[in-house]
Amino acid sequence: MGLIVQKFGGSSVANAERVLNVASIVTDTYKSGNDVVVVVSAQGDTTDDLIAKAAEINPNASKREMDMLLTAGEQISISLLAMAIESLGFPSVSLLGWQAGFKTTSSYGTARIKKVESERIRAELDKKNIVIVAGFQGINKYEDMTTLGRGGSDTSAVAIAAAMNADKCQIFTDVEGVYTADPRKVENARKLKEINYDEMLELATLGAQVLNNRSVEMAKKYSVELEVLSSLVRKPGTIVKEVANMEKMLISGVAKDKDILRISLVGVPDEPGIAFKVFSRLAAKNINVDIILQSVGRDGKKDITFTVGSASSKEAVALMEEFIASHGGEKVISDDKVAKVSIVGAGMETHAGVAAKMFEALYEAQVNIQMISTSEIKTSVLINVDDADKAVSAIHNEFFK
Amino acid sequence: MGLIVQKFGGSSVANAERVLNVASIVTDTYKSGNDVVVVVSAQGDTTDDLIAKAAEINPNASKREMDMLLTAGEQISISLLAMAIESLGFPSVSLLGWQAGFKTTSSYGTARIKKVESERIRAELDKKNIVIVAGFQGINKYEDMTTLGRGGSDTSAVAIAAAMNADKCQIFTDVEGVYTADPRKVENARKLKEINYDEMLELATLGAQVLNNRSVEMAKKYSVELEVLSSLVRKPGTIVKEVANMEKMLISGVAKDKDILRISLVGVPDEPGIAFKVFSRLAAKNINVDIILQSVGRDGKKDITFTVGSASSKEAVALMEEFIASHGGEKVISDDKVAKVSIVGAGMETHAGVAAKMFEALYEAQVNIQMISTSEIKTSVLINVDDADKAVSAIHNEFFK
Repeated sequence: MGLIVQKFGGSSVANAERVLNVASIVTDTYKSGNDVVVVVSAQGDTTDDLIAKAAEINPNASKREMDMLLTAGEQISISLLAMAIESLGFPSVSLLGWQAGFKTTSSYGTARIKKVESERIRAELDKKNIVIVAGFQGINKYEDMTTLGRGGSDTSAVAIAAAMNADKCQIFTDVEGVYTADPRKVENARKLKEINYDEMLELATLGAQVLNNRSVEMAKKYSVELEVLSSLVRKPGTIVKEVANMEKMLISGVAKDKDILRISLVGVPDEPGIAFKVFSRLAAKNINVDIILQSVGRDGKKDITFTVGSASSKEAVALMEEFIASHGGEKVISDDKVAKVSIVGAGMETHAGVAAKMFEALYEAQVNIQMISTSEIKTSVLINVDDADKAVSAIHNEFFK
Repeated sequence: MGLIVQKFGGSSVANAERVLNVASIVTDTYKSGNDVVVVVSAQGDTTDDLIAKAAEINPNASKREMDMLLTAGEQISISLLAMAIESLGFPSVSLLGWQAGFKTTSSYGTARIKKVESERIRAELDKKNIVIVAGFQGINKYEDMTTLGRGGSDTSAVAIAAAMNADKCQIFTDVEGVYTADPRKVENARKLKEINYDEMLELATLGAQVLNNRSVEMAKKYSVELEVLSSLVRKPGTIVKEVANMEKMLISGVAKDKDILRISLVGVPDEPGIAFKVFSRLAAKNINVDIILQSVGRDGKKDITFTVGSASSKEAVALMEEFIASHGGEKVISDDKVAKVSIVGAGMETHAGVAAKMFEALYEAQVNIQMISTSEIKTSVLINVDDADKAVSAIHNEFFK
């Protein structure tokens, strides 16, 4: 008995059958005596289809008009879900982002939520309606439609939960929760009952795309309890919250990221400020650098190696070619046959030897480590992409055997 | 140089090529120094596709949710048209019904425009933007999406023209204007340069579906000059306005309507109040009756015959069966093999013998007249549907030879 926010992604409402399945989950929650607010994304490929329509007419369409176009996607899914709930005999009302009070910044395509004025949602709940809200969208100060960027529906759901002090925010996906490793790849991967916000954030940035990062950050900030669970299987999922007493595990998961490129600047001058010059160039173009390794200088020269996400790879290589042309150096080498494998766990902060245990597992599996990076609750290694699955399994077995 | 409102229907924006064609028409008007407001319907079959999606989930969906669903259709077309105009290098902004100030009554699916608060449109024109407005939609006092019913985009366009005192309202369709008869059927049918509002209204109700009737009524009320023209051929169309001096034509057009059913109540009691009882039953169910014919009573019995639109035919027949069961009478006969052929023209008011000339043409063509109905500017006959095309040609030749 309380207020529950439930979020369903595009694949959960991809067709009539799935929409009716979601309606059944939602009405079950309602029948248990809860107030229910549902946040929905656009159906399946709707957003991609709309983007393709736009590209045919104008590949450089303004972001304002793109947002006008794309927000029609959720408008379709919310009304269809409301109709499905009506067909089960329950009262329901669908609301667009602006009707639900989502005030955002002005930046089309990447707007951020400024506040959720939840009076209308509250009024509809008071009328005993199940309230369906369009995720991913809001309205800016010009009264124009805005979108929060891909994955923004998670953020919409958490924002409502925060604004209305909901008892729980359930994020329904196509997996049953957060696992210690990818269950399709690692045989004895197991579902976590609980995980804390920081670990979830580290896992998300590591390519375990269960939850959108902004939504986890917001949930942490406003102490919104999240649950990640499947829309297809009726089972408890994984709770994301500030867990005081973790399950005495050293690590909560092993993750892998293959969308990565390693770039090496070979033989650049070994003089002060070189690293600064390299990385400030990349930062100026908004290219995020992950692992960095710098060789010890010899004969007045040194090597600088780092990794970037695949999306920035061409631009990063071009920038480095320019750098060598203007500042000297032998050559730029890049390698996309790499993967980053990471372990995440709050336990690392208090337990020594966690990283050593990971390296031992990799040694026993005969996996060569190219680079290493560590943070307080994470240790990552860069390895050959062909070793990635083997490495994840080996590490997982070491910690969860 | 002035303010021009241009309306394009769904077929005019059905695909990328057509959207770009509309953009070219719109920008030509803008380049001539005009302020331009464009009203657009949903693309091609979008509305039907959305209705089908809804039917799959809930065949009895609430009208509120249907309107939420359907209004997404114009949202897609307005943004695509704005992108097309941008691609031609002109400034443009798309507005949803509510952003453009369309305040409507509350009745979902059949809302009527209460007022157009045109400040936002005016502000965008002042910024030199070509303003694209979603037709067919508005917002009610609950801040919910409403639709004006099918064909409502014409009304949207006229409402803007009226509210902003536009110099002209151009309705682009797939025909080049208003013709004296259907040009696909009658060889020497010719396009009218001008027609007045009342004649246009009569033609519209007679099945010459060029303009939505509500839009013509509104145009008449607010003296908005309309032009009906083609979006595919760049030619002047037909002007609809209060024409003082008509082109000295007796009639302005011949129209045909095949979506009609004739119903006869045979042998009902010849007593006072029978006709009242019959037609009040139909009126109570919102069934419009067109031509009525009542036989002279004989042996205490009489026959009543009338026509209704095909959409109401089942319900009307059922009502009449009930009527006979409770009030007496021999039987109900219905016939859908009928067509109504009509001539329309303000000239009839002042010229005698127009109807006679029509009947003569039908006689010469050996077409049997089943029923006759007349108004001040219209004469209609009910005939066998197989004679319809022959009748239209014969009448057209008689008046326009």
